[in-house]
Amino acid sequence: MPADAVFELGDLELELGGTLPGVQLAYRTHGTLAPGRDNAILFPHMYSGTPASLDPWIGAGRALDPARWFVVCPGQLANGISSSPSNTAHPFPELAIGDDVAAQHRLVSERLSIERLALVLGFSMGAQQAYEWAVRFPGMVSRLAVFAGLARTTPANDLLVAASADALRTGGTTQHARFWAATGLSAELFRAEAWRDAGFASVADLVTRLFEEDYGRFEPADLLVQLAKWRRADVSRHAGGDLAAALGRISARTVVAPFSHDGWFPTADCRVEQELVPDSTLNVVESVWGHYAWGITAAETAQIEQILRELLAT
Amino acid sequence: MPADAVFELGDLELELGGTLPGVQLAYRTHGTLAPGRDNAILFPHMYSGTPASLDPWIGAGRALDPARWFVVCPGQLANGISSSPSNTAHPFPELAIGDDVAAQHRLVSERLSIERLALVLGFSMGAQQAYEWAVRFPGMVSRLAVFAGLARTTPANDLLVAASADALRTGGTTQHARFWAATGLSAELFRAEAWRDAGFASVADLVTRLFEEDYGRFEPADLLVQLAKWRRADVSRHAGGDLAAALGRISARTVVAPFSHDGWFPTADCRVEQELVPDSTLNVVESVWGHYAWGITAAETAQIEQILRELLAT
Repeated sequence: MPADAVFELGDLELELGGTLPGVQLAYRTHGTLAPGRDNAILFPHMYSGTPASLDPWIGAGRALDPARWFVVCPGQLANGISSSPSNTAHPFPELAIGDDVAAQHRLVSERLSIERLALVLGFSMGAQQAYEWAVRFPGMVSRLAVFAGLARTTPANDLLVAASADALRTGGTTQHARFWAATGLSAELFRAEAWRDAGFASVADLVTRLFEEDYGRFEPADLLVQLAKWRRADVSRHAGGDLAAALGRISARTVVAPFSHDGWFPTADCRVEQELVPDSTLNVVESVWGHYAWGITAAETAQIEQILRELLAT
Repeated sequence: MPADAVFELGDLELELGGTLPGVQLAYRTHGTLAPGRDNAILFPHMYSGTPASLDPWIGAGRALDPARWFVVCPGQLANGISSSPSNTAHPFPELAIGDDVAAQHRLVSERLSIERLALVLGFSMGAQQAYEWAVRFPGMVSRLAVFAGLARTTPANDLLVAASADALRTGGTTQHARFWAATGLSAELFRAEAWRDAGFASVADLVTRLFEEDYGRFEPADLLVQLAKWRRADVSRHAGGDLAAALGRISARTVVAPFSHDGWFPTADCRVEQELVPDSTLNVVESVWGHYAWGITAAETAQIEQILRELLAT
């Protein structure tokens, strides 16, 4: 069983100013840190996720095999388990992806005494955190795998995230879920009724189970803080706004893996960033599941596993 | 100057049941009906439009030249000028595209004494009405041009329209405008900052002027009736749910013209329908403006003009 824990950070100075007092960073680990402390992988999670959301990616025989790797899954701030509006008495401040990475850096360095990460990987908002790690602490990140995510939020992506926040603010998690169902998949999925392959009985069943029930588990106030972090994601602030200079700092062997039919993070936008990362390749995951190609069916999972296997073998 | 008029229809039996009493159908005509009554073109308008929205497409030297053609632009029901929630004292019923076409058929036949239309064309919701015309009255429609629209709303399109209605219902026209800005354009437009070509100073300026100011002119209650019509669009109901049979009835020489980067009406979805129309061709309008390729810049307008010229020359 994975180990669950909470790291008590104390007060965290925030990137946007001010302090988040008494920060709790929930995290989950899988496997054992090797005596040489050289088998650690950091796996931050996506929007509306928790460390437990990543469990399906870690297991015997998988790319992330806990017999081989020590996989650390930190919980985003505002995920409802780490310090969040929903579990904090005081008014909750606005955050940035950099705050997550600052907290995670203390977890890795102080609590776990890890000096170098064999891999940092993430999907979507997890990719934002992974990019931030690789730019900010290049000497600590040996490999980087970013799936369906960007180092700097584009204007097109920002409009979608803002509209998603609008839906959440005015219509709660149900309206927000319907927004995501409308924008997060692909026309190809519906044209071919490929959702049947994943066990859904109808479009209504898909919307209910994949979106409404999933988002319904979270507090809108927590999700809104996450969305605001997402909008602000921008590694270029480490280089005075120069994205090329910021991404040029990455020394990790990097795979940028957009999803072929993802309207939120189009391949061309991901490629623009990949071409700025020195030791990198672009590897498109083919899927009609749009932004939801992350673990829906065996075909997508096999492609993602293969990317991770190849990267970890280098 | 185009002539504005209102056709008093009396009571209209509605497709979904019930009656809309004392119906007023606003319309605008350009040019003069020829003695042989063979130069009439019907041009229904898009969502959140009026007959005046189509003025830029009609003029001397254009494909739709009023010196040659008698162009009739009927106002959708619920457009704020024709009978609409905003100008009706009684509770307003739910409508279908078929109700618009039934009202337009009376305008064309009874009021204007036109037996055959040289062309029916439309963009988006205008295309829905044009398809409905060609399926329902095949003997009256010589040519059909449908831009960025479908004869039957797909599940993918329906999710977008439903989410658009959610935004309007909970956040008014501003939130609805932001939803459309997020979903109606393309990532390519933003990546290249191609909005500068159309005279916008920034993304914020684009969102304000192209979306917020435009939608802000309309009453949410009117727009909601239009969106509900959009969702129900389905010519297959004329053939017991058989789309192929319904589209197979079209005898018009037809051009189906999707917009290359339109996430609302992807080319592949439009092609599925085009292939079911006997005498038809697919002609993709290349544009990074997504669903907004309709008249934004000269490059798109030239492509659309060319399609209309070629079709009218047959």
